[in-house]
Amino acid sequence: MANTLYYFPPCPFSRKVRVFMREKGLDFSLVEENPWRRRKEFLEINPVSQVPVLVSDRSVIVDSQAICEYIEEVCGGEPRMGKSPYERAKVRRLVYWIDCRFYHEVTRYVINEKIAKQYTKHGSPNPNLIRASMSNLQSHVRYMEHLINTNGWLASREFTLADVALSAHISLLDYMGIFPWDLSPTLKEWYSLIKSKPSFSQILGDRIPGFSPPVHYAQLDF
Amino acid sequence: MANTLYYFPPCPFSRKVRVFMREKGLDFSLVEENPWRRRKEFLEINPVSQVPVLVSDRSVIVDSQAICEYIEEVCGGEPRMGKSPYERAKVRRLVYWIDCRFYHEVTRYVINEKIAKQYTKHGSPNPNLIRASMSNLQSHVRYMEHLINTNGWLASREFTLADVALSAHISLLDYMGIFPWDLSPTLKEWYSLIKSKPSFSQILGDRIPGFSPPVHYAQLDF
Repeated sequence: MANTLYYFPPCPFSRKVRVFMREKGLDFSLVEENPWRRRKEFLEINPVSQVPVLVSDRSVIVDSQAICEYIEEVCGGEPRMGKSPYERAKVRRLVYWIDCRFYHEVTRYVINEKIAKQYTKHGSPNPNLIRASMSNLQSHVRYMEHLINTNGWLASREFTLADVALSAHISLLDYMGIFPWDLSPTLKEWYSLIKSKPSFSQILGDRIPGFSPPVHYAQLDF
Repeated sequence: MANTLYYFPPCPFSRKVRVFMREKGLDFSLVEENPWRRRKEFLEINPVSQVPVLVSDRSVIVDSQAICEYIEEVCGGEPRMGKSPYERAKVRRLVYWIDCRFYHEVTRYVINEKIAKQYTKHGSPNPNLIRASMSNLQSHVRYMEHLINTNGWLASREFTLADVALSAHISLLDYMGIFPWDLSPTLKEWYSLIKSKPSFSQILGDRIPGFSPPVHYAQLDF
C-alpha cells in the first residue's frame, strides 16, 4: 500500500494523523500543503482545500478522523481506539470533544489570529480573541486533568487516539509559547511521556515560518 | 439490551441519533432533557450536560457520533455507515463535515440566537448572526446538492448516516421556517424521500415551545 499524506505543519489535525500513522507503524510519504494557497493540483484532490488528506493507492481519504478510523480498520498492530465497542465509544467521544469543542474554543483562534494572519500577511491578531481562547483553555485543562487523574491516560488505562488528538492541539499551543504549564502538573507529566514516544519526535522538529518555539518545546524534560 | 436515550427536541444531534436508532430497528425509551437546565440527576450521568446520551444497560455513551458508531458495531441489520473501510471513510468524512462545519457555521447560530434565548428568556436574537448563518448556508447547500447529484444519496448510492445527519440539521432549520427550499430543488427532493421514511416520522411530530413550524413542515409533499 503506497500512502501519501498531504499535511500542513501548524495544523493540529495533520499532527494527529502523522503521530497516529507512526504509532500504527505505517510507511508513508509526506507532502507539505498550505491550504490557504489553494493550489490547483491540491484542489483537484480535495475541492474544499482542507488538510490532512491521505492518498492510499488511489483512494482519497479526507478528514483526520476518517483517516484514523480507516487506518485502525485496515492496519494490524496494537489497537489504538479501544478494544471493545464501549471502549471505542469512550475514545471517540473524547476525540470529537477535542477536535470540535477544544478546537473551536481554543486552537482555532490561535490559528486564525496568529498563524493565518502571518501566513497571508493580512491583518494583525485580535488580542481579545486570543484572551478569550486562553480563558476557554483553562476549563478544558481542568477537564482533561480530571480525566487523566481518573483513567491514567485520557480515555482509559491505555494510550489511545484521544491522547494523540489532545497532544496534537497542545503541541501547537506549546510551540506558540502560550500553554500554561504551571497550571497543570498532571498534563505536563502526561505530555512529557508523549513527547518521548518515537511516533511524536517528528512533530518536535517542525518549524512554522515567522514563529520560533520556546526553548523547552523540543525538550523531553521541560 | 435496555436502551434509554436522553434527548432534546430541537437538538440536531439528538434528532440524528433518534432517526439512526429507528433506522437500525433498535428499541429504546426516550427521556426529554433540556441541557440548559443542568438538572442534577442528568449532570451525574453527563457532567458536561450535553445531549444526546445513550444509556445502554449500564453503559453511558455520550456524543451523537460515538452513539451511532456503537450502534453500528453492536447491532445487526443493514449497514448504514458504508460496507467497506473506504466507504465508511467517505460516510464519516461527511458526517464530521455536517456535525462540525455545518453546525458551527449554520445551525449553531439558529440554536443560540433563536431557541436558547427563547428557552432561557435571556436576550433577543442578533439579526447579524442569523444573516451570517443564512449566508453560510448557501455554500453548504451548493456543496450538498453537488454530492447528491453525483452520488444519488449524499455519500454513495445508499442511504447512510451522512443523510441522517444532514436531514437532522435541515429539519430544525425547516421547523424554524428558514430553509431556502426554492434555491435547492435537488435537496428538496432528497428531503422529501427522507421525510417519508418511518424512521423520520417522530421528528416531524416534535414541537418546540415558543415556535410553530410552517404548515409544510410535516407534509411529505411540500
